[in-house]
Amino acid sequence: MASAKTPVQNPASAQPSPSVFVNTLMPQPAHLTEQPGALVITPSFTTVEGHFHDARLDHAVTRALNRLKERTGLLIANLPADSASATLTVDVDGPGEAIQSDDENESYSLDVTPSGAHLHAATDIGAMHGLETLLQLVQPDGEQFILPAVSIQDAPRFRWRGLMIDCGRHFIPFPVLLRTLDAMAAVKMNVFHWHLTEDQGFRIESKLFPKLTEDGSDGLFYTQDQARELVAYARDRGIRVVPEFDMPGHTGSWLVGYPDLAGGPGPFHIERRFGVFDPVMDPTRDSTYKFIDAFIGEMAAIFPDPYMHIGGDENNGVEWKQNPRIQTFMHDHNLKDTAALQNYFNQKLLQILKKHDKRMVGWDEILTPDLPKDIVVQSWRGFDSLAAGAKQGYSGILSAGYYLDHMDSAEDHYLVDPIPAKSDLTADQQARILGGEACMWAEYVNGDVVDSRIWPRTAAIAERLWSPQGVNNVDDMYRRLAAESIRLESFGLTHLSQEKIGLRRLAGPSSEEAGDMNALRTFVSVLQPPDFSGIASEHRTTLSPFSALTFVLPPDPPSRHDFEHLVADYLQDPVAAEAGQTQLTGIFDAWIAAEPDLLRMMANSPILARTRPRAEQLARLGTLGSEAVSYLSSGQPAPQGWKARQLALLDQAGRLQCGVRFTVLQPLRDLVNSVQER
Amino acid sequence: MASAKTPVQNPASAQPSPSVFVNTLMPQPAHLTEQPGALVITPSFTTVEGHFHDARLDHAVTRALNRLKERTGLLIANLPADSASATLTVDVDGPGEAIQSDDENESYSLDVTPSGAHLHAATDIGAMHGLETLLQLVQPDGEQFILPAVSIQDAPRFRWRGLMIDCGRHFIPFPVLLRTLDAMAAVKMNVFHWHLTEDQGFRIESKLFPKLTEDGSDGLFYTQDQARELVAYARDRGIRVVPEFDMPGHTGSWLVGYPDLAGGPGPFHIERRFGVFDPVMDPTRDSTYKFIDAFIGEMAAIFPDPYMHIGGDENNGVEWKQNPRIQTFMHDHNLKDTAALQNYFNQKLLQILKKHDKRMVGWDEILTPDLPKDIVVQSWRGFDSLAAGAKQGYSGILSAGYYLDHMDSAEDHYLVDPIPAKSDLTADQQARILGGEACMWAEYVNGDVVDSRIWPRTAAIAERLWSPQGVNNVDDMYRRLAAESIRLESFGLTHLSQEKIGLRRLAGPSSEEAGDMNALRTFVSVLQPPDFSGIASEHRTTLSPFSALTFVLPPDPPSRHDFEHLVADYLQDPVAAEAGQTQLTGIFDAWIAAEPDLLRMMANSPILARTRPRAEQLARLGTLGSEAVSYLSSGQPAPQGWKARQLALLDQAGRLQCGVRFTVLQPLRDLVNSVQER
Repeated sequence: MASAKTPVQNPASAQPSPSVFVNTLMPQPAHLTEQPGALVITPSFTTVEGHFHDARLDHAVTRALNRLKERTGLLIANLPADSASATLTVDVDGPGEAIQSDDENESYSLDVTPSGAHLHAATDIGAMHGLETLLQLVQPDGEQFILPAVSIQDAPRFRWRGLMIDCGRHFIPFPVLLRTLDAMAAVKMNVFHWHLTEDQGFRIESKLFPKLTEDGSDGLFYTQDQARELVAYARDRGIRVVPEFDMPGHTGSWLVGYPDLAGGPGPFHIERRFGVFDPVMDPTRDSTYKFIDAFIGEMAAIFPDPYMHIGGDENNGVEWKQNPRIQTFMHDHNLKDTAALQNYFNQKLLQILKKHDKRMVGWDEILTPDLPKDIVVQSWRGFDSLAAGAKQGYSGILSAGYYLDHMDSAEDHYLVDPIPAKSDLTADQQARILGGEACMWAEYVNGDVVDSRIWPRTAAIAERLWSPQGVNNVDDMYRRLAAESIRLESFGLTHLSQEKIGLRRLAGPSSEEAGDMNALRTFVSVLQPPDFSGIASEHRTTLSPFSALTFVLPPDPPSRHDFEHLVADYLQDPVAAEAGQTQLTGIFDAWIAAEPDLLRMMANSPILARTRPRAEQLARLGTLGSEAVSYLSSGQPAPQGWKARQLALLDQAGRLQCGVRFTVLQPLRDLVNSVQER
Repeated sequence: MASAKTPVQNPASAQPSPSVFVNTLMPQPAHLTEQPGALVITPSFTTVEGHFHDARLDHAVTRALNRLKERTGLLIANLPADSASATLTVDVDGPGEAIQSDDENESYSLDVTPSGAHLHAATDIGAMHGLETLLQLVQPDGEQFILPAVSIQDAPRFRWRGLMIDCGRHFIPFPVLLRTLDAMAAVKMNVFHWHLTEDQGFRIESKLFPKLTEDGSDGLFYTQDQARELVAYARDRGIRVVPEFDMPGHTGSWLVGYPDLAGGPGPFHIERRFGVFDPVMDPTRDSTYKFIDAFIGEMAAIFPDPYMHIGGDENNGVEWKQNPRIQTFMHDHNLKDTAALQNYFNQKLLQILKKHDKRMVGWDEILTPDLPKDIVVQSWRGFDSLAAGAKQGYSGILSAGYYLDHMDSAEDHYLVDPIPAKSDLTADQQARILGGEACMWAEYVNGDVVDSRIWPRTAAIAERLWSPQGVNNVDDMYRRLAAESIRLESFGLTHLSQEKIGLRRLAGPSSEEAGDMNALRTFVSVLQPPDFSGIASEHRTTLSPFSALTFVLPPDPPSRHDFEHLVADYLQDPVAAEAGQTQLTGIFDAWIAAEPDLLRMMANSPILARTRPRAEQLARLGTLGSEAVSYLSSGQPAPQGWKARQLALLDQAGRLQCGVRFTVLQPLRDLVNSVQER
């Protein structure tokens, strides 16, 4: 955390004039120059588009003006104006690609002066990115809102900046997806990877094969009309939609209605558990490919993107090994193992995709030497796997390090770079690293909690994929993330509000009066969900409720980073740091004081009661912290054995328990380790 | 407020055993008897339906079990059971009406014993009401959840318990309507009155007359598929959908695409202002009725309810008077004024509705003696108008007193009874008062704020319409409303979360650290939106933003009632009330202390800054309160002139200003008036 202590700075700024400009841009632009002065936003703000405009650009400008209106509270009537008099001119050279690809020109420039703002872009897409930047520039200045004078030239570092949402394991309601697209556009992401099929559910209507959803979805699926609506909504925001139909494994839900596709005998059912399961397609029959061909053709008509994702991950090969007919086939075709058979399947699948004009994307497992170079590998295994592919000539996108379900910090994700500084890839090889995708796997999310699992952490990943490699100051990222997090709420996202809603539900109406809410707030301020394996250890199924405190807590709450800083700053000179001592002591006292209120509340809140051991530990951690600060600030040593006892307590508090984990253990450990013993 | 001081009680309970049963039912059932003991909810909770069941009942039971699961955090697998062993048996005699009418039997009985729960109802609808009651009965008991043992026989007092939402003046997004239906079902409301057309927007797709939405909606309308989905969603929850197509006035948006319908020359435009406007249909032409006939026929195929609402309100007659052809028509047909002409129009409209098997509902204005007795009058004028209609033989529903946009308190609405205790109506006449409807007119709401304008206040109206007349203890209502308000959040309603979201937006990310959020919370705890005319005085249009503090604040916050109580309790014996003195002094000190923080925050928050005078007034009100308590508690008189100065300050604070009003002025006035002067 040493690097985190450098002062907040604007990495892209050449002429800082902090008295005016508070840079909360996220992602940071490639080049930004501050100018003196600012453009004041008034109700007479007007906009004109240049010689080119189309419906998509008109929509984008209208949406931006509406957001500007809500942001400033001004009734901006946007009366007609000409380019000489307009407050904002939006000059776009042309519409962009008829079907947005990963080659689309996304660059833009934005110049704000005290007399007006000028946005220029090659395409609608660049203009939309520029409008998002403009909206992020809006800041209060006394009793008015301004756009600080800046000159920005901006373009993304990576062309593929994606978010995958697994809508298979848990169905995510359609409106949640739409607001997610709004938020993606706000942080300049451009690929929505829609994971539509899983053992636990088949989520897209097929008119050719209606039993896919009739028998495989529990009635929870998207209609084709909705899919088309989503694709149009995304296109209107500069976002491509890459659908994923995971094959040949993870297909349990397909097989319920169409058991003839299966490599095993069945019967099949919608899977309720999580993990890797045996059901798999039969790659030996022509009828399988005939089915896939028809299905892919149907989907290709709905999803215009040049790419289609075929999954290809985690086929355990069990059913293939157990099926004598498949074993004979493998023998006859000289396929030495199930991996070879899957490669055979992929080759056939590739031909089907080509027939429907689609390029193949798949997970690491699809990468075998005899696949052509125009496939794209999505790496859940990591850099090395990605780099190895690039060296062989394959394009790739990174997802290892961007798994949102792992409940890592924004900082952890932020510092994962698809092309690390120390990479030995050549320029050509580097160009094959298209970008990355945040992955929201849905074992442990549903529509009620998914926003807080995706946001705001995904904005940090979006910056990693857009901004120059040198933009990597963690403190500055967290400062801007806090601002962006609040801005994102305007799309209806519940990532910030959900916690309080959950606490109200768990604590009941009387807790507000009784002051119990304060104790509960203190409690949750030091907690976050356990990591993926921690939640998995509770043996949840798709039918499990989402009411435990685990699901109420946001991962990586701002308080985690704040506390870490407070302790690090204090430890620089504990004897002199009086303010730090006071603040820390206040925090530790609050932890101790919360215990009786928490225990009383938990005595009549069955769900909260499951976290009682954590409430007791918190009070003990408060004592630990209080004693540590007392020794450190006084410069007095602790009695022998004190540190060992405290470290044992920290070890105990660090154990997986109660479905929640502390965010404060490492800083507390630093405090304890700084104390001298007699 | 004297009656509000009686202790909290369970009005329907015969054998209170408060050590177990915390009655938070809303609405209160007609008859409730507490029994000893409770049914403990465990993961092995099972349900069986009796000899009758259908898809609607299955859905309702499944939804209820899922909510029980989320409420308790238990993985209730609902394994197969028989009626002897099941935890909950749901016995329903039959499916209910093929098309739900206002004659539907909605009664149910629910018996909970320590060994199981038994729900019986004549129809699906009664069963659904019973399931909502069962879910409201769930309460924590130590570390488990229980259903207290009770015996409930329940049926509604009124058969028509509606909520109208005006989707014309502002479009309300479809998902908001769906969650509103969930909430309506939770409080046993049974009519969703969908106000679909207004001068400001035509909101329902017509395939026969596509220009209605193409030219009249700004692209903001519901598709016919959505309308069908909403009707099915509502039916699945025991809710009828009564669509309203307001005619002949309020039709400006119709006339943009179809000016031939108009009684005036045009040109027509989508209205952006609010009020009563001139555009009106031409009632003299056959082509008008041909259009209406075709349109009503199209809508009748989408909306199966026996009733259709034709509005009929606020036609100012201006265009009829200005049109020579219409004047000639009136003369030729011996129609002495525009009211007579509107009656002529209504007669023709009535024939069209009859042709399509629809009964007519309209606002007060439609009531003229020559209309048949099977129409229903919705009264915005009040009891007297409603009672007059009933005496003439007309059925009616009350909406005066239930206008949510007036920003009255839940208490105000709660104490409005469609048949007041002092009513002189005969039993037959009383039977014509079908019930009431809460009305959410949408001049000053959009999809972001509408939840907090509807909920939780509408739950108090729902109780008025369902529960026996004698259930009218305001304190007990507020206590249960607080519990229901939290329960309603589970449907995704934002009525509680929206305030904090808005404050974050207005205050920015740094305010949380700076502690400014506490000052802001103190500030908003004593504020609410002004009444309808107060907001209207700001001359808003449909294009105005919703970002002012006005729209962030909930009407009638719980703090209003709490403070009123605190003061009333204290004033019973100020010298002895030490706890009350301490509490009040603490509150007043917080008001005073908040001022510098608020002013600093407002200096860099342009939207909040508009309320600066209120922040200054709050500090002065704090001083007022502090001095009053000091005189009262010490028993010392105030110097001469003190009261006059304080009352002047209260008058000033009571003036319309800044788009927000204080909730605390009357209790403060009571304090001041209780002080003796020298």
